[in-house]
Amino acid sequence: MTATAAHDHPAAAAQRPDTQRPDAHRPDTQRPDAARIARAALTRLVEPGDALAVHAVAALGPERALVLLTGREAIQPAERDLLAEHAGAPDTLARRWSAGLDRWAPRAARLDPVRDLVALHRLGGGLLVPEDEAWPAALDDLGEAAPLGLWFRGPGTLPPASRALAVVGSREATAYGRAVTTRLAAHAVQQGVCVVSGGAYGIDGVAHRAALAAPVGPDAADAHDGASGRVPPTVAVLAGGLDRFYPAGHEDLLREVMAAGLLVSEMPPGASPTRYRFLQRNRVIAALAGAVLVVEARWRSGAQNTAGHAFGLGREVGAVPGPVTSPSSAGCHRLLQETPARLVTSEAEALALLDGGAPAPRPGGTGGGAGNTASSSPASAASPVRVTDGLSVEEALVHEALPLRQAVPVDRITVSAGLALPTVLASLSRLQRAGLARRVEDRWRRA
Amino acid sequence: MTATAAHDHPAAAAQRPDTQRPDAHRPDTQRPDAARIARAALTRLVEPGDALAVHAVAALGPERALVLLTGREAIQPAERDLLAEHAGAPDTLARRWSAGLDRWAPRAARLDPVRDLVALHRLGGGLLVPEDEAWPAALDDLGEAAPLGLWFRGPGTLPPASRALAVVGSREATAYGRAVTTRLAAHAVQQGVCVVSGGAYGIDGVAHRAALAAPVGPDAADAHDGASGRVPPTVAVLAGGLDRFYPAGHEDLLREVMAAGLLVSEMPPGASPTRYRFLQRNRVIAALAGAVLVVEARWRSGAQNTAGHAFGLGREVGAVPGPVTSPSSAGCHRLLQETPARLVTSEAEALALLDGGAPAPRPGGTGGGAGNTASSSPASAASPVRVTDGLSVEEALVHEALPLRQAVPVDRITVSAGLALPTVLASLSRLQRAGLARRVEDRWRRA
Repeated sequence: MTATAAHDHPAAAAQRPDTQRPDAHRPDTQRPDAARIARAALTRLVEPGDALAVHAVAALGPERALVLLTGREAIQPAERDLLAEHAGAPDTLARRWSAGLDRWAPRAARLDPVRDLVALHRLGGGLLVPEDEAWPAALDDLGEAAPLGLWFRGPGTLPPASRALAVVGSREATAYGRAVTTRLAAHAVQQGVCVVSGGAYGIDGVAHRAALAAPVGPDAADAHDGASGRVPPTVAVLAGGLDRFYPAGHEDLLREVMAAGLLVSEMPPGASPTRYRFLQRNRVIAALAGAVLVVEARWRSGAQNTAGHAFGLGREVGAVPGPVTSPSSAGCHRLLQETPARLVTSEAEALALLDGGAPAPRPGGTGGGAGNTASSSPASAASPVRVTDGLSVEEALVHEALPLRQAVPVDRITVSAGLALPTVLASLSRLQRAGLARRVEDRWRRA
Repeated sequence: MTATAAHDHPAAAAQRPDTQRPDAHRPDTQRPDAARIARAALTRLVEPGDALAVHAVAALGPERALVLLTGREAIQPAERDLLAEHAGAPDTLARRWSAGLDRWAPRAARLDPVRDLVALHRLGGGLLVPEDEAWPAALDDLGEAAPLGLWFRGPGTLPPASRALAVVGSREATAYGRAVTTRLAAHAVQQGVCVVSGGAYGIDGVAHRAALAAPVGPDAADAHDGASGRVPPTVAVLAGGLDRFYPAGHEDLLREVMAAGLLVSEMPPGASPTRYRFLQRNRVIAALAGAVLVVEARWRSGAQNTAGHAFGLGREVGAVPGPVTSPSSAGCHRLLQETPARLVTSEAEALALLDGGAPAPRPGGTGGGAGNTASSSPASAASPVRVTDGLSVEEALVHEALPLRQAVPVDRITVSAGLALPTVLASLSRLQRAGLARRVEDRWRRA
């Protein structure tokens, strides 16, 4: 898809000759079909990683699932049987479904998927859905945690996982970490491999920048794939809606990433990048890439969360060592000590991660393979620990939804959190006892 | 043993009251017994790691073995049967024994063990032998590669392996490596653990220096062992005779190590520290210590040879990571990639190596245990590679014995190498073809 075509308004599409139509493998953002519209609505209705919603879509299709999840119609016995085949544990399904309806209800009235699709189309993007040819099969490795759709902006197409290396790390990058990231990311692009990262300050930003600046080598020119087109140099996976650039200080960088490759997000336009969504975003990075390379990470860091997701998916994880005196390398050393992460010292070893254990072409090479030992749960051992650790997912969502200063009424929190009123009330009560929420008359804010 | 007593001449010993006699667990260097004299001779007769000689001593005792190895008497059928029980492969024993006699003969006429013992006694030391109470049981882990005796200088006693950490590394130490070595070695001494190293420039020297400078903590004060006395802060294992200090630039340091602890060597006074003996020396470091910590090492380094010996002995090996941009950390990263070496980032993790895999008292701790997968042979994968690699042991010994400049006659080479004339001639011929030896009339030097 050319930049011009991407920015056309849908009304102009009919006048465009076939030769100017977007690539067949890219979704047609001008004429959204019913499934795409339903999935667009679902991305706003449910939080990322809502397994029951994913099962409902798999069992009943996105359109019917949307009707049921929004409570417009009640689920039929035959549908419930079908859902039970996907969701398992039939004994608890009725209770889980009922809890789901309570969780989805607060946002059900506020859906306007066509508006969202038009908004993204105007921004040069759209919603990629599993029904599209360009949907990366690698995302399906997430199983019941797979995204319901992936919003995108930019002319690129997502590469196959075998051609995508996630390069992630600490916001507190050192000069050493920046130099190594630049070297490894640039080399990957020169070899026709897309650098996937999270657009954050520190290592993420350096990885994107190096990928953008790297000369595309002869290998990269060959890196075409019949189904998915040319491999873009870099893709940023964001935690919030793509109508804004987060972090704000990276707006220029993210615009460059968009121009040369893609920005993607599970979240519809307007959605804020909450901490919960950052952790869920990490699973998308891990799934899109064939391997995850952590260049620098603190003892507790989001990069370790991404690595945990990668292990859960059976992906290789590499970690770059550094001085033991540097806190920004402590997380890498921890990964090397406590997980099957492989120690990476060179460009060749970084790319060898994508070969799933093949030794790098260096004397002696890289020994040992990675296993599938860590949990993919955001609460896994490798995930960061905060004051909010130990909270349930619901409590974490409610905590995220609480404003820092100005207290808000409970119905606002149900919408922000995407949870049912009883769940929100129960969570608020527990958060209050834990000293994490404060009640101000009949409104709430963080403590 | 006090320094005064150590420097007394044997003739003075009879006049000294019992209260001034050396500790019972230290060998009595004043009145060498027949076994000690025989072993002193054997350390000059055979090169370190001569398995057949070790088997002969084990089967027949050091005195009888010396008589046979020097060819003064022929081995009796009953003795040969006994030797076969130890040395295995009885079919080849006759040939091996014959080759051994040829190998040992050139030096057999030049033995003067009492002179050597007196020389070391005058230097404040002596020869520690397996018959001594103070002989570290850990050395016997070397099996048929065990030393026949250990020359020593200094007032200390060798600690049990559980109280000895080898800290070794590159001669080309960086400021980072020096700082980390200082921290880890000082902490070990404070915890009552002896730092064993090789006295070389770089990491070895820094480790000794830090151990000497470290305040002995309360834990160290408790680190007594009924059988072996107080744990010295540091022990240097040298590759040559203890009558000289090698490298010369470390004379002051080695004198300090001697004053506070011990210098030890397999080699008798006057023996030069050849490259072959350096590699063999590394196996003694690995055996004396309960674990080996490599702080900095080049891609090819002696420290990796020491680590290889440690794996062969079932000892834990730790490696400190560093910047991937530093050649002085490349060997550590290689150990971490290709061997079961454990990644060490802290003082606690370094000492945990001695516990054989117990996690360090840090959140998360150190996972994974070491195995026994690498060969203890100096030609193992972890050993350094040079132009002389691929040579047989005999060829390496002959190559070592060749002077760099002035050519020498073959009989001089047989004595230096400790090999039989036919072996030396055959090796010289092969070295000449390999471009490693040059014949100058009927003399030889290195090419």
